[in-house]
Amino acid sequence: MAVQVTVLGGGVIGLSVAWFAARDGFPVTVVDRGSPHGGSWVAGGMLAPITEAWPGDEHVLDLGVESLERWPSFAADLGLELSEVGTLAVAVDRADAQVLDQLCAYLGTRGRSARRVTGRELRGLEPGLGPSVRSGLHVPGDLSVDNRALLDALRAACRDHGVRFAEAEPGAEPGAEPETGAGRNGGVTVIAAGAWSGGLHPKLRGVIRPVKGEILRLVARPGALPPPRHTVRAHVEGRPVYLVPRPGGLVLGATQYEAGFDTGVKVRGVLDLLRDAEAVWPAITEYALVESAAGFRAGSPDNAPVVDWLEPGVLAATGHHRNGLLLAPVTARRALALLREREDS
Amino acid sequence: MAVQVTVLGGGVIGLSVAWFAARDGFPVTVVDRGSPHGGSWVAGGMLAPITEAWPGDEHVLDLGVESLERWPSFAADLGLELSEVGTLAVAVDRADAQVLDQLCAYLGTRGRSARRVTGRELRGLEPGLGPSVRSGLHVPGDLSVDNRALLDALRAACRDHGVRFAEAEPGAEPGAEPETGAGRNGGVTVIAAGAWSGGLHPKLRGVIRPVKGEILRLVARPGALPPPRHTVRAHVEGRPVYLVPRPGGLVLGATQYEAGFDTGVKVRGVLDLLRDAEAVWPAITEYALVESAAGFRAGSPDNAPVVDWLEPGVLAATGHHRNGLLLAPVTARRALALLREREDS
Repeated sequence: MAVQVTVLGGGVIGLSVAWFAARDGFPVTVVDRGSPHGGSWVAGGMLAPITEAWPGDEHVLDLGVESLERWPSFAADLGLELSEVGTLAVAVDRADAQVLDQLCAYLGTRGRSARRVTGRELRGLEPGLGPSVRSGLHVPGDLSVDNRALLDALRAACRDHGVRFAEAEPGAEPGAEPETGAGRNGGVTVIAAGAWSGGLHPKLRGVIRPVKGEILRLVARPGALPPPRHTVRAHVEGRPVYLVPRPGGLVLGATQYEAGFDTGVKVRGVLDLLRDAEAVWPAITEYALVESAAGFRAGSPDNAPVVDWLEPGVLAATGHHRNGLLLAPVTARRALALLREREDS
Repeated sequence: MAVQVTVLGGGVIGLSVAWFAARDGFPVTVVDRGSPHGGSWVAGGMLAPITEAWPGDEHVLDLGVESLERWPSFAADLGLELSEVGTLAVAVDRADAQVLDQLCAYLGTRGRSARRVTGRELRGLEPGLGPSVRSGLHVPGDLSVDNRALLDALRAACRDHGVRFAEAEPGAEPGAEPETGAGRNGGVTVIAAGAWSGGLHPKLRGVIRPVKGEILRLVARPGALPPPRHTVRAHVEGRPVYLVPRPGGLVLGATQYEAGFDTGVKVRGVLDLLRDAEAVWPAITEYALVESAAGFRAGSPDNAPVVDWLEPGVLAATGHHRNGLLLAPVTARRALALLREREDS
């Protein structure tokens, strides 16, 4: 009989691992706290490793590109639609344009190409871009997904394969140490609790940290210019901002703070996001603000995830930082391989 | 036996009328739709007729001052605390300062005094005012009240006096014509449905209109400068904004649109409110945004309420526009006098 797998965390990583394991014949239970501040719930849904690339994070870029290639079949298995329109990374001032130049040059050295485009070309692709947008990068291969539809689809797929769901004690504080159940009945515990993983095992303490981010959800009101077709990322006076289209609206993100588990949506963050997005896509002033939320990414020292055994019977699948959705397919695949190895040993 | 009174509307006006009538021995039923967009629920809670004054609206000023004088005993009867710190009306640019000069001169002609104060004096009263605030008006006599605590207290007072509560059909569209019950069993219907009153009687159609307003609720986060003690009103580049203190936070309002019953909170409104409030009270950037809401004031052609018989058995108490909370005591008093007259006739 296959070993019992208990997954701690019902975000996109936990559910993806649970789904892959259950589909492979493991009996699986997912234990979740149902926090509204989980990274996958608050996310924008970009699957965009190229425009996320930065010198020093080659390992993240390569892993991201590998995972992006797996996304179409991953989504198809879930019956989930992807947006395949691609990403525009745009610049407002000269310093912002220099960041894109650097990114473009760096991508060249890594054998990845992104096309530098003029303001005129950008407006050919997205006529609603603001007049201060002067130049950009066009990345046609990038994808995006509705993160909340993804969570629903993963839960449904898990149930279809017999995954059991249990609620973590509602009173449990973020970071409180639960019973990991390591070795219990010879079972395996998978720590996939995102930003809260640092509190779940000594080897993750001080390694996985919460990186707070705020997002806003906007809906185009009647008569307003519709949202962009592409995912639009921008640097506005040095601050990164992204607009990820949704039917009839968009997700606007994301701030980034090292502020522990502070769940407040700061006025500073809301102002920055709205002002920066207005420069990029002026029509948003006529949109309705329907949600503001703060969530926690699972930060790691090298911005790359930890997917490995922490001790016999305890597997980590966490530390995905800004890339939890993107890296779900490779993470679930890697975690399944580790579970199988243990079965065989 | 006293005549049966049915009050349509469970906002501050409907509840105040119901309370006064029930306390006077009338059997009263309040019918409410429970909309989250009612003016009293979304309000800031200023009781500030002086800084609201404007040439041409003398009748509103006089009524407001009369009602303000009744507020302390009205609140005491409800067991409700008032903030008595007063209002500061401040100006950011020269045009804003001219508006305050005009207001000050006008108040003089009406025998009302408000003290013009310098930036230095303002900062003596409220050290957290932004550096761009140059001058202002000090109105020590103004009050403010927690609008939601007021609604709770009014409902409790109504129940204490035997008022029955009925829910309007939840499917009822705003403005849908209900059975007013005029003359039914010789009873009286009081139309106190705020912005929706225009749809409830032919004589109010086209007279009472919704005037949309948006507010934000902010909470001071740990380490942030606390909110002002005074209610602070400002003109910032011509746009009015107010900050009404609440324990640990403030209500920030209010935009004003003629947009029918559109319930969306516009990005434009949020941006204007936050930017303008930041100029007045810079510490708000460190506050948390905990609520954004849109509500409807009951606009009337002359900005004054309609408190009168529309036909035998149908009394109006509506059209309070920006002054519903302020005018609740005089409105309830006037409505009760009209109900008594009918009893006597």
